[in-house]
Amino acid sequence: MSTSTKTQLTVEPGSHAMEIVREFDAPAALLLRVHTEPELMAQWLGPRRLQTRFDRLEAHDGGRYRFVQWGEDGTEHAFRGVFHGDPSVEDGIRQTFEYEGAPGHVSFQTLAFEEHDGRTTLHATSVFTTVQARDMMLASGMEGGMNEGYERLDELLARLTVDE
Amino acid sequence: MSTSTKTQLTVEPGSHAMEIVREFDAPAALLLRVHTEPELMAQWLGPRRLQTRFDRLEAHDGGRYRFVQWGEDGTEHAFRGVFHGDPSVEDGIRQTFEYEGAPGHVSFQTLAFEEHDGRTTLHATSVFTTVQARDMMLASGMEGGMNEGYERLDELLARLTVDE
Repeated sequence: MSTSTKTQLTVEPGSHAMEIVREFDAPAALLLRVHTEPELMAQWLGPRRLQTRFDRLEAHDGGRYRFVQWGEDGTEHAFRGVFHGDPSVEDGIRQTFEYEGAPGHVSFQTLAFEEHDGRTTLHATSVFTTVQARDMMLASGMEGGMNEGYERLDELLARLTVDE
Repeated sequence: MSTSTKTQLTVEPGSHAMEIVREFDAPAALLLRVHTEPELMAQWLGPRRLQTRFDRLEAHDGGRYRFVQWGEDGTEHAFRGVFHGDPSVEDGIRQTFEYEGAPGHVSFQTLAFEEHDGRTTLHATSVFTTVQARDMMLASGMEGGMNEGYERLDELLARLTVDE
């Protein structure tokens, strides 16, 4: 795997924000689909040891989403949020995010897709209501799960590109 | 007016966040109403020189809002967002916020109501996707409009408390 497919995570000390940059070998329209179609998103989101089920994903202004993840022991963890605006290649995706196990700690995520020569750079920003909430998220092991999820997404995108 | 009714605005240099603390002489249930009922909110939001019209305010999980403000010259400015979760006295209000004149600069607002002896302290936090977007908002003169809006809200709350 080339270095260009690695994920860059930027977290300044004491900041409310977390920045992610990741390049994918697929056009932006496909990146949008794997972030807004529940049957596709359930195939890559999170580490390999977890399975994901979407109860709902309404990818439009005011639409809601909720997904559940579980591992071998069957313990379920649920996450939910709402969409601000209609997701699109041009505007990206703006959505809230809350882990139901820590209710009230809501963050706001912005995803932007920048296509160049058939490849797409994803710019993802999360801002948290408090610096502590961001640091809790980092301490939860999210970085490892994110990296593994994006590797699964590389594999899914390769399959989808062949199918088309 | 006593000092306890003044607005405290906290903005750390280089931070994505803006914190507001303001005490009102009304119970939390009434504070919730004036933040979620469009006919009430249109009576106090913003400086006195502007009028406000709500096109929509759906105060529930995934609900959308849009309001328009205009002054003497008739120029209209519109703002919109979505609600994360159902607004309530216990959970407060979580909502996105976007000025349509600067599309893409979306912030996330958290309002919490803390009642004590019939009075309520409002804790409001806004986090912006970039520090620059927060600083643009500060430079727009929002602080003056906010202070005047909260003075209008004091007057509205006094009228509503007498009516009940």
